[in-house]
Amino acid sequence: MKSYIQEQVQNYKEKHKNSGRLLINCPDQPGIVSSVTQFLHKNEANIIESNQYTTDPQDGKFFMRIEFDSPRLPEKEEELRKDFHSIAEQFDMTWTLKGAYDVKKTAIFCSKELHCLRELLLEWQSGDLITDIGLVVSNHEDCRELVESFNLPFYHIPSNKDIRKQVEEKQLALLEEYEIDLIVLARYMQILTPEFVAAHPFKIINIHHSFLPAFIGANPHKRAYERGVKLIGATSHYVTNDLDEGPIIEQDIMRVDHRDSIDDLKKMGRTIERSVLARGVKWHLEDRLIVHENKTIVF
Amino acid sequence: MKSYIQEQVQNYKEKHKNSGRLLINCPDQPGIVSSVTQFLHKNEANIIESNQYTTDPQDGKFFMRIEFDSPRLPEKEEELRKDFHSIAEQFDMTWTLKGAYDVKKTAIFCSKELHCLRELLLEWQSGDLITDIGLVVSNHEDCRELVESFNLPFYHIPSNKDIRKQVEEKQLALLEEYEIDLIVLARYMQILTPEFVAAHPFKIINIHHSFLPAFIGANPHKRAYERGVKLIGATSHYVTNDLDEGPIIEQDIMRVDHRDSIDDLKKMGRTIERSVLARGVKWHLEDRLIVHENKTIVF
Amino acid sequence: MKSYIQEQVQNYKEKHKNSGRLLINCPDQPGIVSSVTQFLHKNEANIIESNQYTTDPQDGKFFMRIEFDSPRLPEKEEELRKDFHSIAEQFDMTWTLKGAYDVKKTAIFCSKELHCLRELLLEWQSGDLITDIGLVVSNHEDCRELVESFNLPFYHIPSNKDIRKQVEEKQLALLEEYEIDLIVLARYMQILTPEFVAAHPFKIINIHHSFLPAFIGANPHKRAYERGVKLIGATSHYVTNDLDEGPIIEQDIMRVDHRDSIDDLKKMGRTIERSVLARGVKWHLEDRLIVHENKTIVF
Amino acid sequence: MKSYIQEQVQNYKEKHKNSGRLLINCPDQPGIVSSVTQFLHKNEANIIESNQYTTDPQDGKFFMRIEFDSPRLPEKEEELRKDFHSIAEQFDMTWTLKGAYDVKKTAIFCSKELHCLRELLLEWQSGDLITDIGLVVSNHEDCRELVESFNLPFYHIPSNKDIRKQVEEKQLALLEEYEIDLIVLARYMQILTPEFVAAHPFKIINIHHSFLPAFIGANPHKRAYERGVKLIGATSHYVTNDLDEGPIIEQDIMRVDHRDSIDDLKKMGRTIERSVLARGVKWHLEDRLIVHENKTIVF
Repeated sequence: MKSYIQEQVQNYKEKHKNSGRLLINCPDQPGIVSSVTQFLHKNEANIIESNQYTTDPQDGKFFMRIEFDSPRLPEKEEELRKDFHSIAEQFDMTWTLKGAYDVKKTAIFCSKELHCLRELLLEWQSGDLITDIGLVVSNHEDCRELVESFNLPFYHIPSNKDIRKQVEEKQLALLEEYEIDLIVLARYMQILTPEFVAAHPFKIINIHHSFLPAFIGANPHKRAYERGVKLIGATSHYVTNDLDEGPIIEQDIMRVDHRDSIDDLKKMGRTIERSVLARGVKWHLEDRLIVHENKTIVF
Repeated sequence: MKSYIQEQVQNYKEKHKNSGRLLINCPDQPGIVSSVTQFLHKNEANIIESNQYTTDPQDGKFFMRIEFDSPRLPEKEEELRKDFHSIAEQFDMTWTLKGAYDVKKTAIFCSKELHCLRELLLEWQSGDLITDIGLVVSNHEDCRELVESFNLPFYHIPSNKDIRKQVEEKQLALLEEYEIDLIVLARYMQILTPEFVAAHPFKIINIHHSFLPAFIGANPHKRAYERGVKLIGATSHYVTNDLDEGPIIEQDIMRVDHRDSIDDLKKMGRTIERSVLARGVKWHLEDRLIVHENKTIVF
Repeated sequence: MKSYIQEQVQNYKEKHKNSGRLLINCPDQPGIVSSVTQFLHKNEANIIESNQYTTDPQDGKFFMRIEFDSPRLPEKEEELRKDFHSIAEQFDMTWTLKGAYDVKKTAIFCSKELHCLRELLLEWQSGDLITDIGLVVSNHEDCRELVESFNLPFYHIPSNKDIRKQVEEKQLALLEEYEIDLIVLARYMQILTPEFVAAHPFKIINIHHSFLPAFIGANPHKRAYERGVKLIGATSHYVTNDLDEGPIIEQDIMRVDHRDSIDDLKKMGRTIERSVLARGVKWHLEDRLIVHENKTIVF
Repeated sequence: MKSYIQEQVQNYKEKHKNSGRLLINCPDQPGIVSSVTQFLHKNEANIIESNQYTTDPQDGKFFMRIEFDSPRLPEKEEELRKDFHSIAEQFDMTWTLKGAYDVKKTAIFCSKELHCLRELLLEWQSGDLITDIGLVVSNHEDCRELVESFNLPFYHIPSNKDIRKQVEEKQLALLEEYEIDLIVLARYMQILTPEFVAAHPFKIINIHHSFLPAFIGANPHKRAYERGVKLIGATSHYVTNDLDEGPIIEQDIMRVDHRDSIDDLKKMGRTIERSVLARGVKWHLEDRLIVHENKTIVF
């Protein structure tokens, strides 16, 4: 498959050619940090950024993300993982160790509202979103011209609830063909089947146009208008099989007042949705997100 | 009854001794503004601030607030009102014309959490909240010392749901004795009876410790923590007989993250609650709030 | 000259085909509002939005913006203006009365940093920025492809301080040819001559990448980093002949911390610059900005 | 000397009776974190919160703050410090290890504007500011009643630039008598001598009523008004001998518009000053602030 990585992404890969990320999740106990940092030290790794978080004593979970540089990391990556195994076993860790140069492949799903798609493309083009956009899928033709002007493959797959199964089969085939790591629902307005969601655990990010849990479901701006709120918001979250109930990644709001019509709320909402989705996607791409008990830890 | 107006309030009254406020609410139609401004012009009134708002054509309602200065207003007030009558009839207006020097009398109800009470007293003492605080009522003794240090009357009225009726009788007697215009529920954690609420339409302001309509009801911080939201908020609103469903006056939020415990959320929440309640109360005291279809217009 | 108005702008024009805007600026005195609203009433105008502002009594200036609908406005526009003349004389007004359907023509000047250009094009394409973008001018070739993908004319005019005069002659010729009303400096890093600025009073909007008056001049992000500020900002303002001293239109900020490098500040800055410039441009296009004593009134 | 620690502070001390804080500052090099965490592990310390930061490679400095619990810490504190010595030497560390139960003693200096003093007292009384307020000093009598209502010692020391030397001698004697660790200038409007400042390096926190470096010096609100900014701010910072040039601790802003008079800016400014100062003071009291090259690292 042809790769659509652009110049900015190439620069990033060159700059991070020896950068790695270690993510850890285990029961809290003494000695974890000490063992991990000794391991990295022994392997000539220079810690660039380190974050850790321990839940309260009853829950007793420990989480850590370390970004490091280590000479000739791509050659040593496999070996490092093998070496880390015994530490991981000792502390009963769930963990990943990846090269930051392994840029994730993204699919964007959209519909008729294109502001979120435009923002992602714009940020990607500016080099502020480091990913390889594999393809864009929509149930409408509206964004074809835009997508193709970026030299990206566009697939129009009409959809409705009666043909959901067939639609998803086509989508799944494309996701496999393009070796997609992350699916971004950029105002895709269609509900996914439990099977589709289950096949991509914490790999699908959606943008909801309200500050959840307020205004779950359809028409949040109309309902916000009717309730007379003084703030409207947007929420990016991982998709699970409970509608709008998945782990929240990021939220933001804007001030509104009595003069704002439903259309004004929608217009203002677009600005918030764009930035809230883009931030969430960036954090995922940088392996900054860990899900724990339907909440995200953002490192 | 002894008056508790302090020096700052006296200064305000002197400075606004000829200031008036005209509030209007009527069906939209041509000629309203023209007639009103001609009337004020004829009466030597100088417009200080003017705000208007028209709802969409289907609803067709017009709202206006004018703040003006007019020489010897206190003497002419009654006459002005009489003169305005014919205009009001012509346009089918609901309206009020008041002197800004007629400072409202406020009662504060609180319980064990005192941060909102402290904020109101602090702002009042600084001259940033122009009101005559008549009395403070609580179902606990916790704030007595604080209230009395401000030379304000404090009434301890123990309360629970079994004696609600008797409690409210005592409260109503005090509200009448002190000629109270506004009741502020500064984290008063008791539910009021429909009769009590009905007796004070849009005269009771409550602070709810969430960004409504998210987390209606009890324990919003605990539920916010469990849902993993990235923003917490507070809402000041008029009290109606639908719990937490009254017209929203003001809302604000603060950013939180995965490290924040329920206690942290409560602590941060206090800061938001304080300012959101204080702003809402100020706007009410300045006659900036008009309620229309369970929403507030903030002029 | 070929017109580049797109479909969204056409929809807007159709929807506002009878909408007008009246802007007034005069010494404050009794009877202004009354006369103006009577005039509009007599001319069957329905007031959609009305804002006014009076400076303090020493300064004594009055400003007003009224948006109204009036049947067959395009046919009556000229006559309305003639009729308004006597009121304007009586109150010594500076004023304009325009059709909201007369969409302004904009030129965008940029250089190598393209995020502000991209934002304006994106908002324009979404129908959130109502203007006719006449052309884009740059001293570099970097944005040609982007601009031409929107079917807009692009002009590459290399520039440096030695040839400023000749460069501006070419630019002025283009501005005239395209009948440009507004020039947006979307991170155009060149200084304009006093003659160029004087020829376009309050018709040039610039984005400065700091919260002015902090960090006037070059390299604001580097200096912000060195000073250790906890907030970075951006400012859109009208260009005058005092560098970064023109009337401020809009400002916003973002929180930063000790971990953010100069590059991080630049990256975050881009997001603020984009929205602060876009808001400023929108307000100008909607005739919401009046300049008074080097400050903007934003109606 | 009588102690003015209140109940809330006592509760805090009980709850943190085994909590310690280790702060480290040294040249970056491999093995630091590993050595430190091993040391804590060996000493039965449970890490509660850990933050680290490395400056860019050219500068090459490493900073760390660890909050931990260790059984019987008060008894072992001295020994721990002795043990840590060899690690500290190996890595050339500047460091402190303190019990979180050793609550700092604070002096508040103020003048005629009392909103910052009120906020600190309010937060202290709520248990949100953990310190032992030793005394309040002012060059005016305005706050005596307020301070004494909190059962705190108040000292009125009239001041002007001719008697600065004598005034500071009195102040220094009091600071010594009350064993003060932190001096908060809560809108104390007097300039301190270089000697006074030098005697308290990074132990004096000031609130400046602008978003520095904008509007350094006197009358920032008047100058903000004249410049026509759309945001006003406040800055808490450590005092050094360069006026308003010390390391910035915290900043925040509020939106203003053309209708706001200088008095309005002052009023809104008070709200920002209060919270920006209180946050800065809290972070200092929790040992979250490290100064590096005239900037603060906030852990």
